[in-house]
Amino acid sequence: MKHSPWNWINPELTELQTTTLLKYKAGEEQLSALFGLKKGFTVTKCCNRNWEKEMAPGKKGILERLNAGEVVIGDGGFVFALEKRGYVKAGPWTPESAVTHPEAVRQLHREFLRAGANVMQTFTFYASDDKLENRGQNLKLTGVQINEAACDLAREVANEGDALVAGGVCQTPSYLSCKSETEVKAIFKKQLDVFLKKNVDFLIAEYFEHVEEAEWAVKVLKTSGKPVAACMCIGPDGDMHGISPGECAVRLVKAGAQIVGVNCHFDPMTCVKAVKMMKEGVEKAGLKAHYMVQPLAYHTPDCSCQGFIDLPEFPFALEPRILTRWDMHKYAREAYKSGIRFIGGCCGFEPYHIRAVAEELAPERGIMPPGSEKHGMWGAGLEMHTKPWVRARARRDYWETLKPASGRPLCPSLSLPDGWGVTKGHTDLLQQKEATSKDQLKQLFDRTKNQ
Amino acid sequence: MKHSPWNWINPELTELQTTTLLKYKAGEEQLSALFGLKKGFTVTKCCNRNWEKEMAPGKKGILERLNAGEVVIGDGGFVFALEKRGYVKAGPWTPESAVTHPEAVRQLHREFLRAGANVMQTFTFYASDDKLENRGQNLKLTGVQINEAACDLAREVANEGDALVAGGVCQTPSYLSCKSETEVKAIFKKQLDVFLKKNVDFLIAEYFEHVEEAEWAVKVLKTSGKPVAACMCIGPDGDMHGISPGECAVRLVKAGAQIVGVNCHFDPMTCVKAVKMMKEGVEKAGLKAHYMVQPLAYHTPDCSCQGFIDLPEFPFALEPRILTRWDMHKYAREAYKSGIRFIGGCCGFEPYHIRAVAEELAPERGIMPPGSEKHGMWGAGLEMHTKPWVRARARRDYWETLKPASGRPLCPSLSLPDGWGVTKGHTDLLQQKEATSKDQLKQLFDRTKNQ
Amino acid sequence: MKHSPWNWINPELTELQTTTLLKYKAGEEQLSALFGLKKGFTVTKCCNRNWEKEMAPGKKGILERLNAGEVVIGDGGFVFALEKRGYVKAGPWTPESAVTHPEAVRQLHREFLRAGANVMQTFTFYASDDKLENRGQNLKLTGVQINEAACDLAREVANEGDALVAGGVCQTPSYLSCKSETEVKAIFKKQLDVFLKKNVDFLIAEYFEHVEEAEWAVKVLKTSGKPVAACMCIGPDGDMHGISPGECAVRLVKAGAQIVGVNCHFDPMTCVKAVKMMKEGVEKAGLKAHYMVQPLAYHTPDCSCQGFIDLPEFPFALEPRILTRWDMHKYAREAYKSGIRFIGGCCGFEPYHIRAVAEELAPERGIMPPGSEKHGMWGAGLEMHTKPWVRARARRDYWETLKPASGRPLCPSLSLPDGWGVTKGHTDLLQQKEATSKDQLKQLFDRTKNQ
Amino acid sequence: MKHSPWNWINPELTELQTTTLLKYKAGEEQLSALFGLKKGFTVTKCCNRNWEKEMAPGKKGILERLNAGEVVIGDGGFVFALEKRGYVKAGPWTPESAVTHPEAVRQLHREFLRAGANVMQTFTFYASDDKLENRGQNLKLTGVQINEAACDLAREVANEGDALVAGGVCQTPSYLSCKSETEVKAIFKKQLDVFLKKNVDFLIAEYFEHVEEAEWAVKVLKTSGKPVAACMCIGPDGDMHGISPGECAVRLVKAGAQIVGVNCHFDPMTCVKAVKMMKEGVEKAGLKAHYMVQPLAYHTPDCSCQGFIDLPEFPFALEPRILTRWDMHKYAREAYKSGIRFIGGCCGFEPYHIRAVAEELAPERGIMPPGSEKHGMWGAGLEMHTKPWVRARARRDYWETLKPASGRPLCPSLSLPDGWGVTKGHTDLLQQKEATSKDQLKQLFDRTKNQ
Repeated sequence: MKHSPWNWINPELTELQTTTLLKYKAGEEQLSALFGLKKGFTVTKCCNRNWEKEMAPGKKGILERLNAGEVVIGDGGFVFALEKRGYVKAGPWTPESAVTHPEAVRQLHREFLRAGANVMQTFTFYASDDKLENRGQNLKLTGVQINEAACDLAREVANEGDALVAGGVCQTPSYLSCKSETEVKAIFKKQLDVFLKKNVDFLIAEYFEHVEEAEWAVKVLKTSGKPVAACMCIGPDGDMHGISPGECAVRLVKAGAQIVGVNCHFDPMTCVKAVKMMKEGVEKAGLKAHYMVQPLAYHTPDCSCQGFIDLPEFPFALEPRILTRWDMHKYAREAYKSGIRFIGGCCGFEPYHIRAVAEELAPERGIMPPGSEKHGMWGAGLEMHTKPWVRARARRDYWETLKPASGRPLCPSLSLPDGWGVTKGHTDLLQQKEATSKDQLKQLFDRTKNQ
Repeated sequence: MKHSPWNWINPELTELQTTTLLKYKAGEEQLSALFGLKKGFTVTKCCNRNWEKEMAPGKKGILERLNAGEVVIGDGGFVFALEKRGYVKAGPWTPESAVTHPEAVRQLHREFLRAGANVMQTFTFYASDDKLENRGQNLKLTGVQINEAACDLAREVANEGDALVAGGVCQTPSYLSCKSETEVKAIFKKQLDVFLKKNVDFLIAEYFEHVEEAEWAVKVLKTSGKPVAACMCIGPDGDMHGISPGECAVRLVKAGAQIVGVNCHFDPMTCVKAVKMMKEGVEKAGLKAHYMVQPLAYHTPDCSCQGFIDLPEFPFALEPRILTRWDMHKYAREAYKSGIRFIGGCCGFEPYHIRAVAEELAPERGIMPPGSEKHGMWGAGLEMHTKPWVRARARRDYWETLKPASGRPLCPSLSLPDGWGVTKGHTDLLQQKEATSKDQLKQLFDRTKNQ
Repeated sequence: MKHSPWNWINPELTELQTTTLLKYKAGEEQLSALFGLKKGFTVTKCCNRNWEKEMAPGKKGILERLNAGEVVIGDGGFVFALEKRGYVKAGPWTPESAVTHPEAVRQLHREFLRAGANVMQTFTFYASDDKLENRGQNLKLTGVQINEAACDLAREVANEGDALVAGGVCQTPSYLSCKSETEVKAIFKKQLDVFLKKNVDFLIAEYFEHVEEAEWAVKVLKTSGKPVAACMCIGPDGDMHGISPGECAVRLVKAGAQIVGVNCHFDPMTCVKAVKMMKEGVEKAGLKAHYMVQPLAYHTPDCSCQGFIDLPEFPFALEPRILTRWDMHKYAREAYKSGIRFIGGCCGFEPYHIRAVAEELAPERGIMPPGSEKHGMWGAGLEMHTKPWVRARARRDYWETLKPASGRPLCPSLSLPDGWGVTKGHTDLLQQKEATSKDQLKQLFDRTKNQ
Repeated sequence: MKHSPWNWINPELTELQTTTLLKYKAGEEQLSALFGLKKGFTVTKCCNRNWEKEMAPGKKGILERLNAGEVVIGDGGFVFALEKRGYVKAGPWTPESAVTHPEAVRQLHREFLRAGANVMQTFTFYASDDKLENRGQNLKLTGVQINEAACDLAREVANEGDALVAGGVCQTPSYLSCKSETEVKAIFKKQLDVFLKKNVDFLIAEYFEHVEEAEWAVKVLKTSGKPVAACMCIGPDGDMHGISPGECAVRLVKAGAQIVGVNCHFDPMTCVKAVKMMKEGVEKAGLKAHYMVQPLAYHTPDCSCQGFIDLPEFPFALEPRILTRWDMHKYAREAYKSGIRFIGGCCGFEPYHIRAVAEELAPERGIMPPGSEKHGMWGAGLEMHTKPWVRARARRDYWETLKPASGRPLCPSLSLPDGWGVTKGHTDLLQQKEATSKDQLKQLFDRTKNQ
């Protein structure tokens, strides 16, 4: 049985509206034609609402999919997307809105699902207790509260479509402040306990600048028996101690990760390059793994090893760097060609970016994302534009070759990154519970000006 | 009585969470301090949920506010924001998702409300029957259905905060195809009937390229007795027939508009300039009006008279032109200094852009938007960032003087606009019901290549 | 009798070399073919060396040429070209090297002649006594000495080809310091006396920011009975007191100038636009004149009314703005189409820029410049390049459509001009004889930093 | 005995002028003060005109200078500079104007001498018989004629100041066309014979893309007993067969070169980087050498291994890439810090670029170049500018931090290089005597368009 991409989307439809939609269903064949895909291709599976904490029966797990050679589409980064929408504070970047504004988090999950994502990653970035403590959210929500709320939201939306729930952990202030392996592992264990209680489908350890901490995380997550993916936030130059992507990957696979890759910090092409280096390293070591990539949606050719954090535009003036949907087509193709099969996004990704990834790989997957209902491939929707010279843009070669202007003649195209060349263990990086004091800030400001 | 900015936001809170939030309320004074505003300033009013189609009792109308010299913050453009989220199709740009995906539309309304908007404009752009007909949405929803759903959503969210509902109409394909004044007015009348049934608070006629059509719209809307605002989508060069902003404004005021201005098509500074020209024209004519501006969130210094439609990047590669929040501060200040008091946004605006407008004008308004709970003014949130060199960016002069890089060294900063120098009445612009045929498209493509 | 473009060039050839060259002459027909011009076209006339101060017999004067509708090619700006070669000091910009390094000045004249110039302008910019005095050239050369040496050099080279000698005066520090009309006119008279003694062919009053001073200059020059050309260094916004190009031109024609136009301060297209405005003004006033333009060879779309002086890059970082030879083709065509017939250059022009002007107008003139011996039209010389992908650039459409990269990803494309909005009479602009003192400089530096 | 920098410059001074100049000499001390150098520093030595083909008695040879740790300033590239002046044809790039227009070549030598150059390189680039033959200069001058004329000009000017004459050879079409070692060596030998007859001071083998051919050249030149310098035109990626800079340098030293380095093809910083790699290679191999660098005066961050030839802007639209004098200060400092002591320039260098190198290294050398008579260090000359806001630019930190705008908002900052990935031996690169035919060109144009 085939399902339309829209009959699950709107649980609030009146009877009249539902009738209208049913009539609309008759147009499904036309839709297939419009998308230019062969008749009979499968549209994303739909499921009835299912509030339970289980993967819907019949869904394949992450490893089943990857072992079968399927492409798995990831979602985009939640902290940046929700910062723009008003629910996350830049600086602390903590996810307490999973508790305080569930409707906003749920909606973002739904948009990524509609865009074609097969993974709903729990909105638990920086949701470890040590981070919540030292980055001052006034609400005094506990880590457990936030992690639980995030799991429920991810499960609710995952069950509205063909998606899995992935519980996510990331690097901790404890590690940066040189706490012991035991202490750091305890942090991860606390989040894992929630993921097990909520029965997520698999686990992702992501956004690690130091492979040592990533290994610790993987080892903790492995105790669960669930599939484990591990992502460094590094580029081709390797981790903060100069350990190459290849060696990082080998160590993560040996620690137990079945899927390895990189996320965040660099633009798509750079991230794909780093994952290719990981793949070469793993293969050279005679090991096996699946590969994933979840890059920025920002062009960052000017980054140093620490990625976009060091760019002067981070995090409040990155707009001119945002990738277009056509950039995403190139990224998706390059990732696929490099042997990566878990392809998603991180900071800067909006739903239409993920949709572009899904559309580029539609021939391989035999599936168009539900959201393509509202999108003409390669600008085809412009065929209906009022002005004829805009209709003339309704073609692939127009958008593929366009070099978009910045509209900013006073701005350069590249920046010189900041960054003081320090990493874990350096006093500059010791984390404190308290907010930075005025005196501390003044010292920072002066130091910057003298550089 | 003062209200906190958060107690209305989340109607789905559990009892436990509410208790937590109540404890959080104790932090309100700290919040005032954080925002650097004098104690006792009023935080956005909160109202209990009110599903009726009435303005909440005690709320001031649009003219009351403007007559009192208050700043009214508008919302952002829905078609572009929802296109990125997957609910509007670029090309037709029609708002049928008001019916099919109300949760997405409602969420966007909420985000703009949270960002500080005082106006919830009904999501009825291009929702006239002649447009819905000739731009092929398969669903066969009627204009009435869409307009009604849009009114309900705007009202629902407006009543969650201190916002008014504005029913909106815009230019019609009928006019471009040279239909008669009677026919065009009938189109507006049909939408107005819904607005009256749903009892919106005031009316906006916007996005008109020809002042003649705008006058017709204003005259229809005036029959309702409700306040009427009118916006041209023009820049300093005037309308498509070369009628200057000043003269356009005079004609709109004479037609009955109490508020005049421009929306869409140009970047903020250009739009403010055009509205200033309107103001000068109106004052020179010895007339009186209030002024509004709802510009693009894209830098468009290279536009010709038809605005961003003619830029080669429209609509799928505008990313590098997106304004930062700091650009928005400058815009809000300039608009205020120019005597404009209804200040909002159009295509490209995300909630954080409107929040920046509200934050810039917080001293004048004595109000911070609820969403500033998640935003440090001028980057203050970075005081809590992990890396000290990022903490060093937690200051106004850093962001105010930064010239953000595009990250695109192969791209120029300006483009040469398209546009064939034709307007209403030209055969190139005659609208047809049917989708453009392949033959028609081929002719267009060839024509472009030969230019 | 036809002359080859090379037999005059080299007065130092040995007998052997001359014989070789004579054999070379046999190739003249091939050359005509190579240049793609119809057989029998006249190559620039050659004359034997003639050290007298007379125009060679048979040469047509400037007005004869212009009255006959001929195109007259000007030369380029000497102070900038010789600054790069090491013979003029930026800041004072005075021409004492006419005395101290005649070989360098002579060589530059020759290169412009070879490039196709029909006018050798005497190297007498800023050679008025008041300027020489207050801008400290240590040599204590008198204005008379410099002006005489410059006339001799221009005559010597003019007589080597088909060129006229134009004596040039420009704006004076006396005017800026509010000296009387009598005093200012006396300055011009002193230079004119030399020009008469040396019997130049015509006179150019150029580089005036204030039309009043230009009128005074024209009136002085007119007393000589020689043809007078007058150029303002203004753009479309008019002179420093806001007098429009049209009005400036009318006043100059009424003062006695037979040729009017603009030079310096703006890029070619802007200058052409300003001259077009002059032409419209003159024609509207029922007057008659010839028109000339000698613009910068720098792109200056970001200038304010005072031109490139106010750009932050002036004068030591203008390199990225230098026009290509292809830009010059467009300029020459546009100037010609605008009815301008005296077409030359100013600061930034190198010989190859003038050659490009001459090559673009070769069909109209029936003459190729001698220097084209070493230049393939539209890149044709690349047909002989070693690498095939460089040979592929040997075609007009390649160079006409190329958008050259800056190679500077950290640099913007436009600048914000300086300029303190002051002009003649303001204390900021009072000129002093002495070099600026350290204290005065410190005040300037601080003032800049606070802006 | 000290000499002033100007008493040799002008052999054509009249008696009156000489008297004036002698009075000027009294200002020498002031000059020292102006330059901010300690009293008693030596100004460039002057010599009486000496038309003989000998190094002036008392001058130190190239190895003496380098062995003593002195900085030797090179000159700039002649083919590009003379192309702009109208004496070299782009494409063939051959130096026949040494014969036909000696005054132009002599003047350029003088300008570089005045700018501070200690080396007058003979204008013999591409002056091998095989090149002259297959690149069609109609004049039928022999290689011997051109090489001799070039030697005479270099010697004449070298003897006017403290400079040496270097005879130069470069890569040959014979090598690219796979001629034998014997044949290629014979080509070099022919040029060497002239250099020996004219008794140049040392030899430079430069502009080699393949180290094998450079070795052959060095071996031929070594037979003369004169010092030999050898430069590859490569960047950090090594020669066209991928041989690293380090290995190239080792092979050249082993072949007999006392000085090794790179010239042309890349911008200064890239060239310095390549020479540093050479130095590391040589030192690692336990060998000894001196190092030289003569880079482009164009910014080329976007080059591939074949350098600026492959940039789409080569050779007729490189203007926006030209380095400023301030860029040259940075280059000179970096080269010096890297242990390079023979520091000059290649294509794109104008005399003021070399002067900037000499000025930057004046403290180390205790010498200011003669041309600095007309240049204020770090913009000091602007202290005398008419406008106060331009006087405010008379300071080092202004120019050092300025990011100059391109004035070209439609242009990008980087380009994608051409280049078909082929090198010596590939049929695409076989050289032919005849000019490329129309058919051959058409194939090239089509091939380019399809890429």
